[in-house]
Amino acid sequence: MPELRKDMVRNNWVVVATERALKPNDFPINKKDVSYETETSSIHCPFCEGNESYTPPEIFAYRDENIPKNYPGWSVRIIPNKFAAFELTGELKQEVSGVFSSCNGVGHHEVVVETPEHGTEFHEFNLNRIELIINTFIIRYNVLLKDPRIKYIQIYKNRGLFAGASLDHSHSQIVGLPIVPEQNKGLTEYYLENERCLLCDIIEQECMYKKRIVYETELFLVICPYASRFSYEMWVLPKEHREHFGDISENEVKELSVVIKKATSVIVDCLNNASYNFIINTSSVNTPQNPSDHWFVEVIPRLIVPSALEVSTGYYINPAAPEVSAELLRKEFKNID
Amino acid sequence: MPELRKDMVRNNWVVVATERALKPNDFPINKKDVSYETETSSIHCPFCEGNESYTPPEIFAYRDENIPKNYPGWSVRIIPNKFAAFELTGELKQEVSGVFSSCNGVGHHEVVVETPEHGTEFHEFNLNRIELIINTFIIRYNVLLKDPRIKYIQIYKNRGLFAGASLDHSHSQIVGLPIVPEQNKGLTEYYLENERCLLCDIIEQECMYKKRIVYETELFLVICPYASRFSYEMWVLPKEHREHFGDISENEVKELSVVIKKATSVIVDCLNNASYNFIINTSSVNTPQNPSDHWFVEVIPRLIVPSALEVSTGYYINPAAPEVSAELLRKEFKNID
Repeated sequence: MPELRKDMVRNNWVVVATERALKPNDFPINKKDVSYETETSSIHCPFCEGNESYTPPEIFAYRDENIPKNYPGWSVRIIPNKFAAFELTGELKQEVSGVFSSCNGVGHHEVVVETPEHGTEFHEFNLNRIELIINTFIIRYNVLLKDPRIKYIQIYKNRGLFAGASLDHSHSQIVGLPIVPEQNKGLTEYYLENERCLLCDIIEQECMYKKRIVYETELFLVICPYASRFSYEMWVLPKEHREHFGDISENEVKELSVVIKKATSVIVDCLNNASYNFIINTSSVNTPQNPSDHWFVEVIPRLIVPSALEVSTGYYINPAAPEVSAELLRKEFKNID
Repeated sequence: MPELRKDMVRNNWVVVATERALKPNDFPINKKDVSYETETSSIHCPFCEGNESYTPPEIFAYRDENIPKNYPGWSVRIIPNKFAAFELTGELKQEVSGVFSSCNGVGHHEVVVETPEHGTEFHEFNLNRIELIINTFIIRYNVLLKDPRIKYIQIYKNRGLFAGASLDHSHSQIVGLPIVPEQNKGLTEYYLENERCLLCDIIEQECMYKKRIVYETELFLVICPYASRFSYEMWVLPKEHREHFGDISENEVKELSVVIKKATSVIVDCLNNASYNFIINTSSVNTPQNPSDHWFVEVIPRLIVPSALEVSTGYYINPAAPEVSAELLRKEFKNID
C-alpha cells in the first residue's frame, strides 16, 4: 500500500510508493524528446557568443578587462530576463478592489548564461566552470540583498522541456522577490516547537538510517528525502548549519561543484536524459534573522508531469520509493567516480 | 510590469501579466504532440471494449442488464486504478519515526472509462454521454461518502501528456482521500472573517466587472479567475451556493454538460490542442459541515510546464492576463454556439 509521508519542510503530505521504484524506462514522459531545439532556433540563440546584441545589456560578465561589455569574449554572462516575472521599479504597493488584492511586481529577474558555447550542457562542464557559476551566484546574491525591496533570492535552473525551460542553451536564473514565499515554513514551525534546526536533525537521522543516503563528502550529504515529492529527487545538504547561501565557504563551493556535477550527470546518463531543475533554498533577506533556516540544494528530475490530483490536492504522488531510488543513485554516483 | 495577485481560494500569490496574453501559438509546449499513442499501445488499450479482461474487475458500469459484468456491451465503466495512490484496506494509522511521520494510504482510487470507443475524446461526446458521465460522478460520490474513512472525494480528468495523462483512451478518475487537503483553505478563512461565502462574493463582483466573464447560463458563470494560476484557466461557478458536488440538481447536470463540452472544445480547437485537466472542487465529507465551501469546476489548459520557480516558491507564473484571455475565450464560446 502506498504511504502518506509528511513533508516536514513544506508542512504538507506526499503520497509515496514504499517498496518499489518505477524504473527510469517506465516513465511515459521518457518517450519524448526534452529539447525545444529546431535548426532555426540554434542559429538565432540569444545566449550564444556573437549574439550579444539580441539580449538586453549585460548586468555582469566574467570577461577579459580589455573587451567592452556586450561583445564576445566572456565566460559567464548575466543579463536581465527579457520576459521578467519581476521588475525593480518603484516601491511595493498593495491594491485592494472589493474581494481582490494585488501588489505590483517589484523585484528582479536575471539570466545566468553559463557558457558561450551552444550545446555543451551543465553536467558536461569542467569543475572550474561549475565553480565559476556557483561563485557568480554568490556574487549576485550578495549584490541583490543590498536592495531593501528584495526579501527573498531564488536561484534555480530549468533544464529541458519537462522542467519548464524555454531555451536549450545552458543557463540558470536568479529572481529577487518582494515577499517571502512560505513554501519552507515547516522549518520555522519545527524550530518554534523544538528549538532545533529541522535539517540538522534530518542529517543526523539519515546518517544513522543510511538507506536514503546517495553520496557523502566531508561537507555535504546527498539524500533522497523521506517525503520526496519527485521520483529520484535528491537533496544536497550542507552539514554545517548556515542560513544564507551567500555566506558559504570556498571549500563548500569546491565540494558543491563536484556533487552537483555528479547529480546532474546521473540524471542525464542514468535517468534517460530526463529534464531536471535545481533549486537553491536559502533564508529570507532584509527581514529579521531566522535561525530555523538552513540553506540546501534540491536536484529534481522531472520524470512525471503533475496531474490534476497534484494540482487539486497539493499532494505530490511519487511512484518511486526514496529508499529504492537512493540505492540505484548510490551505485551510479560510485560509477562516475 | 507583472502583478502579484492574491489567490484568495488557496491563500497564495500568483504572478500574472496584466495587459498582454501570450497567444496560443506562442507557448513553446505547443510544438510537442500531446499524445502518448503508439501503434502497439492502442491495440493493447485496457480501456477498449473487448479488452475488459486487461483491467481489475469492474466496480460499476452502465450496461444492458442481460450482459454480465466485465464483458463488452457497456457505455461508461468504472474500474479500480491499477496503479492506485490509495487502497481501502484497514484503518488509518499514523506512524512516527524520529523527525518523520507517515500514514498508511487508506483511501480509494478508481478510473471512469468514459466511452468504449478508442479515439473519441471528451469534447466530441454528445451531450447525452457527458450527462451520463457527470451522473456517474454523482452516483460514485454519494456511494464513496458512506465510508467513514473517506474525508474528501476528488474527481478529475487528465487529458494529454502535459496534463499528466498516461493513457489516451478518454477517462477520468475519482479518489477518496483519508485526510482533507488544505488547498482551498482560503474559503474557510474568508468565511471566518466575513461570515460570507468567498465564491458567492466573487460571482457578484465578476458580474459587475464583466471583463473576466467567458460565458453565462441560467445556473452557471464561467470566468477566467482574477488570480489565474494557469494561462487561459476557466472556473465554472454554480450560481447557487451548495457545498457538495453530490447534491447538484438535474438542471445543473444538464447545463454543466453544455458548459464543460464548450470549455473542452475551445481548449482543443482554439488553444492548439492543448493538454488539459478538469477538477471538481467540493466540500469535505465525514467531517463537520463547512458552510464556507462552494463546489465548482476548474478547467485548466496546460500550456506551460511549472518551472523551478513555481516548485520552489509555490507561486504560479502566468504570462496571460486573465482579462485578455477571457476576451478571446468569450468569442470562441460564442463561435461554438
